[in-house]
Amino acid sequence: MPLRGNATFLLSLSIVFLSWKFCHGGKILVVPFEGSHWVNMDIIIKALHSRGHSVDVIRTSVSWSIQDNSPYYKTVTVPVTESFNHDFVNPIVKRVIDIESGESSVLCFASLQVEMLTAMSNMHRKMCIMATNLFKNKDLMDSLKESKYDLVLTDPALGTGIMLAHALKLPLVYNVRWVTSGEGHMAIAPSPLSYIPLTGSRLTDKMTFMQRMKNLIMYVIWQVQDQFLISPQYQAICDEFFGPEVRYSDLLKGADLWLMRVDFVFEFPRPTMPNVIYMGGFQCKPAKPLPEHLEEFVQSSGEHGFILMSLGTFVSELPAEITNEIAAAFAKLPQKVIWRHKGDRPVTLGNNTLLVDWMPQNDLLGHPKIKLFVAHGGTNGVQEAIYHGVPIVGLPLFFDQHDNLLRLKDRGAAKLLTTSTVHKDNNFLKAVQEVLNDFSYRMNMERLSRLHRDQPMKPLDTALFWIEFVMRHKGAAHLRTESYRLPWYSYHSLDVILFLLTIALLIVSLFAGLVWSCFRLCLKRKVKSD
Amino acid sequence: MPLRGNATFLLSLSIVFLSWKFCHGGKILVVPFEGSHWVNMDIIIKALHSRGHSVDVIRTSVSWSIQDNSPYYKTVTVPVTESFNHDFVNPIVKRVIDIESGESSVLCFASLQVEMLTAMSNMHRKMCIMATNLFKNKDLMDSLKESKYDLVLTDPALGTGIMLAHALKLPLVYNVRWVTSGEGHMAIAPSPLSYIPLTGSRLTDKMTFMQRMKNLIMYVIWQVQDQFLISPQYQAICDEFFGPEVRYSDLLKGADLWLMRVDFVFEFPRPTMPNVIYMGGFQCKPAKPLPEHLEEFVQSSGEHGFILMSLGTFVSELPAEITNEIAAAFAKLPQKVIWRHKGDRPVTLGNNTLLVDWMPQNDLLGHPKIKLFVAHGGTNGVQEAIYHGVPIVGLPLFFDQHDNLLRLKDRGAAKLLTTSTVHKDNNFLKAVQEVLNDFSYRMNMERLSRLHRDQPMKPLDTALFWIEFVMRHKGAAHLRTESYRLPWYSYHSLDVILFLLTIALLIVSLFAGLVWSCFRLCLKRKVKSD
Repeated sequence: MPLRGNATFLLSLSIVFLSWKFCHGGKILVVPFEGSHWVNMDIIIKALHSRGHSVDVIRTSVSWSIQDNSPYYKTVTVPVTESFNHDFVNPIVKRVIDIESGESSVLCFASLQVEMLTAMSNMHRKMCIMATNLFKNKDLMDSLKESKYDLVLTDPALGTGIMLAHALKLPLVYNVRWVTSGEGHMAIAPSPLSYIPLTGSRLTDKMTFMQRMKNLIMYVIWQVQDQFLISPQYQAICDEFFGPEVRYSDLLKGADLWLMRVDFVFEFPRPTMPNVIYMGGFQCKPAKPLPEHLEEFVQSSGEHGFILMSLGTFVSELPAEITNEIAAAFAKLPQKVIWRHKGDRPVTLGNNTLLVDWMPQNDLLGHPKIKLFVAHGGTNGVQEAIYHGVPIVGLPLFFDQHDNLLRLKDRGAAKLLTTSTVHKDNNFLKAVQEVLNDFSYRMNMERLSRLHRDQPMKPLDTALFWIEFVMRHKGAAHLRTESYRLPWYSYHSLDVILFLLTIALLIVSLFAGLVWSCFRLCLKRKVKSD
Repeated sequence: MPLRGNATFLLSLSIVFLSWKFCHGGKILVVPFEGSHWVNMDIIIKALHSRGHSVDVIRTSVSWSIQDNSPYYKTVTVPVTESFNHDFVNPIVKRVIDIESGESSVLCFASLQVEMLTAMSNMHRKMCIMATNLFKNKDLMDSLKESKYDLVLTDPALGTGIMLAHALKLPLVYNVRWVTSGEGHMAIAPSPLSYIPLTGSRLTDKMTFMQRMKNLIMYVIWQVQDQFLISPQYQAICDEFFGPEVRYSDLLKGADLWLMRVDFVFEFPRPTMPNVIYMGGFQCKPAKPLPEHLEEFVQSSGEHGFILMSLGTFVSELPAEITNEIAAAFAKLPQKVIWRHKGDRPVTLGNNTLLVDWMPQNDLLGHPKIKLFVAHGGTNGVQEAIYHGVPIVGLPLFFDQHDNLLRLKDRGAAKLLTTSTVHKDNNFLKAVQEVLNDFSYRMNMERLSRLHRDQPMKPLDTALFWIEFVMRHKGAAHLRTESYRLPWYSYHSLDVILFLLTIALLIVSLFAGLVWSCFRLCLKRKVKSD
């Protein structure tokens, strides 16, 4: 049977080719997002590089966080005149504090919502300009096509990478926590709103009737935002470059793999899909020794240990009354404090507190002398705290931070404060002392840490395995449902139910009609016979 | 701070204790189901034993597949007078063939459905007698309690193990493909009927309107069966021994882990839950050398290779006209054939065909000379064929067999026949020749095999990891949603939607009323002023 012989030979050849190819590594095109999202992506890029893959990164000419040159990747720069930046963050934080303190009116709250929405829509608009500039640049697109990448790895918080994968006909892998319509899962996994709290809802997975109502209303708001403000911007680009039959939402949902930056030690249990791979905490690793001056400072804390405080990458300023209150509270503690702080030096700062511009957060969280982490609740920081088992006093500011911290509070591993009350009645000092002295916080966080670390593979290795899986098999179609292509009424079987109900109604009506006719006929005859 | 000092000491002690405990292995109570389900469970028990765990197995005094003594486990025997057996299988197969051939009326079809349902309900009734005998036996229950097991491992196709775990307050792990309400996923993962085909529906994940209607109707039938025929039997036991506040369906859905005997190379992509662990193909392993007489027979096939045929554990007899046709077709082939056959010797049997009572199926499927597997489509055989990349000619008889084979046909790796047509128009011979000569079947099956084998861990190791995980952490609550405790209308947010609609309607009515009143007022004034 020569056919089979030939095919076997071809098969062997392709296996040899494949092994060769993966000994020599694949080619990956990364379309990242700026800021803390890039910090995440950079870790994966370095890991891919160390496994022999070559990585090209697409950035804008005005990118503020993605370096142009790196030993780990080459950059492909798209010229734009304005880029997403984080100037809008500090004013919004100030407004949030005013509103939470009750110092602003309901009107102010509404205007803040509009402002945040505008900022978000604006961010997507800038990303769309980047995408348009990219797709219009024939030379650049041709050179990308000729590069014969194996896959596109992108953060779907913004949509350029999604459309680029379609344009280049490449498998698509996400490094994801957010999509345009909200939290990543909501786009592809069935998400009953009765027990899956929306981001921003400040709810857990156990809700009262009123809470479920709030959750449903927030869902509608998210959907309206996405349908009317954000997705149309991307759809316009699809219309222009791929034709109107290509739906942006289909491209978004059609990714091969979703490497999700959470896990179920952090996230409440919920439905998921076979092509969602959990890599929460992939950035965490055992602590390295600290720089000499930090180690010295930390050691000087003696048996009391030290506290770490950071409010993340974006926020550089809190109102002075809050920072002064926090500094004064720290000054009363026997612990030492390392505080990543960017604004003016608080006047009440004690001798035990060291202000720093930057710090090796993971190494400090993994230090044996750490007692407590005062955090704003960004996903990265929360996952690192879980990994190292350090309890948290949380001071959430906006976005998902309150929800992130709520997940730890619900497990008894964190205490939550709000910006409106943190500087009143010694609240901050009380919260810090409670978490330091009530050992249950530490016990609970250590339990989470044990659960998190007890996985068959490290999250980063899992992520790498699946990225390479997609390269080896040219996608992961067998893990991906295409049910999203169904119209919503078919997806939910509403058309079938309506049809069956109509049939049932018809049968009942016919039967009732028949009985009624018989009844009337009998009645008539009876009248006649009478 | 002595509190923290003490707690740290206690923590260290408990870690030492835990490490000791798991060096010395855990104690597992297994409540298996008979037949091919037991074959599966036995593999896991042996693996657990080899990792140093001690296993006790609960069986009935009339068990026909679970041995009383084994080097791998101890048995706990529950006295019963009658046990589930498979006598009902052969008559049902005959009826299926009659009906598929059109030789029986619609009435016959209905009576077959009733017969199968009665058989199934009967099976559960016998299991309930076993459970009652067990729970009534105070000495036996006391000795089980005193044994201090770490978890209950059970096959939830029948419910005794589920209730026993509740009675003993132990974590619960399933080795699962079926539950009383149908396919395992349907009980805990959201399952949109628009793309998740019901077992028995003979549908894929891409359906027309009529197919989706069929699927929905089958779902209703499954639910009615479960709600009125099966679950009440178990609920009666719960009522008797645990009180009516304990719902059997809650116990069923509340298991810590679902070790699912499928994977997504076999199953269509669908929603899943964090506590579903896929171990499809866990029984597969590289082929061992064959017994001498089989190796000799197989080698004698030369370049043509050989065909394997088996219709599984239960079915011992097919009608003579079918077996004769199959034997005659085999006789015309240049391949050798090994046929696991239990009935009368077919009169048309050729020299190239070897009838056997039993065979080392995995070793034969993994032999380099195998060309084709003629199979009934049981999950075990299908997974083994995938593992070894052997294409299938399928002859499904009942239960899930047609659906199992359909999944391979849909991927171009199997050809399907029905018992009604297999013996007509050389259908069997044509099908076998097609799969032998059209190389795409083999290519597709080998692709499935590559996908299946390309996992970070072997399925059996994954299963063992997670069983031990549950022992280490006394359950897996963080992976398990408790949303099943919500009433169905709350789960689907119907109460919230109804409430919001009512409010909306009220507001609209009020507004309309107001407008109408104003209008009438204006009108009156106009009339007056006129």
